[in-house]
Amino acid sequence: MKSEIRILGIDDAPFSFSDKTTDILGVVMRGNGYMEAVLHDHIQIDGNDATSICEQMITRTRHYAQLKAVLFDGATMGGFNILDIESIWKNTKIPVITVTRNQPDFIKIRLALKSHFSDWEKRIKLLEEGKMEKISTYYNPIYIKFKGITFTKAKEIITLSTIRGVIPEPLRVAHIIASGISRGESYGKA
Amino acid sequence: MKSEIRILGIDDAPFSFSDKTTDILGVVMRGNGYMEAVLHDHIQIDGNDATSICEQMITRTRHYAQLKAVLFDGATMGGFNILDIESIWKNTKIPVITVTRNQPDFIKIRLALKSHFSDWEKRIKLLEEGKMEKISTYYNPIYIKFKGITFTKAKEIITLSTIRGVIPEPLRVAHIIASGISRGESYGKA
Repeated sequence: MKSEIRILGIDDAPFSFSDKTTDILGVVMRGNGYMEAVLHDHIQIDGNDATSICEQMITRTRHYAQLKAVLFDGATMGGFNILDIESIWKNTKIPVITVTRNQPDFIKIRLALKSHFSDWEKRIKLLEEGKMEKISTYYNPIYIKFKGITFTKAKEIITLSTIRGVIPEPLRVAHIIASGISRGESYGKA
Repeated sequence: MKSEIRILGIDDAPFSFSDKTTDILGVVMRGNGYMEAVLHDHIQIDGNDATSICEQMITRTRHYAQLKAVLFDGATMGGFNILDIESIWKNTKIPVITVTRNQPDFIKIRLALKSHFSDWEKRIKLLEEGKMEKISTYYNPIYIKFKGITFTKAKEIITLSTIRGVIPEPLRVAHIIASGISRGESYGKA
């Protein structure tokens, strides 16, 4: 796989309890970390629009035809606005990879969803769908889910696009920008 | 000079005539293009606050003590909100470099300022202050002004932080982010 491939990383901005929506930021990068574009939209906090808004973001960018994968920081955005990665793959035909540093505590999440959402069963189903695979790194392991791509290829994309630490560069940078525009100064993840 | 030095690039977002303010984005990068932080604030369009807002952005970032230079895309932001680079150097003690791809047409600028601003003389004085030096590149030349640093060192910083084309990476990326958050998708400069 070439270091010149283009990857899109999408992350949401931190928000406060009084907010109704939050920013989401997409970063199109070459595998070697060279930034090509920044995409920007909004989603509802605890809403159901993250999947469709991300699908639009992916298909509307002028880099769409070149994208080899889209990366997310886990499968939730803007609180419990849960991503349907099956749908994103089906509607965009771009392989989807979600990356987390910790295995989600599904017992806690189930309780939180049950007590806050009438459609909690649908949200839990989305969250629990797909197998989570572990990738060992020089530092801590990371956990991924993926759609439209093999585990081997998904690992290759993550290894290729990680410069320091364990987080692939398009996701690390999307997180820095999202925090920066919402807080005035970003606080990166290592 | 090491590729690990930290440089801040600040650029403004595109705006429309009905806007009163516009976003400014700062990007702290290592010389090799590794992003450390994103800073965000607002300035008045055609106002007089760009200098003080940028001074705050520089001195308030937690990377302040490590910054080796701050780069701007020319000396105007948010229309004719003109940067006083002498003041920025004096108040922050960080060397300042402005970079442009074309030599400003001072005759046209004078006319525009005279017909729109009662304090046009002050704005023109700021704009014309300092000598503009040419740097030849493999592509087109660029023109810089600088304060608190020698021409040789300024050239070194620009060469070190330019990955492709002629625009130093912190400025190129600040521009991409600023356009992306204001327009939904960025349109980079080569």
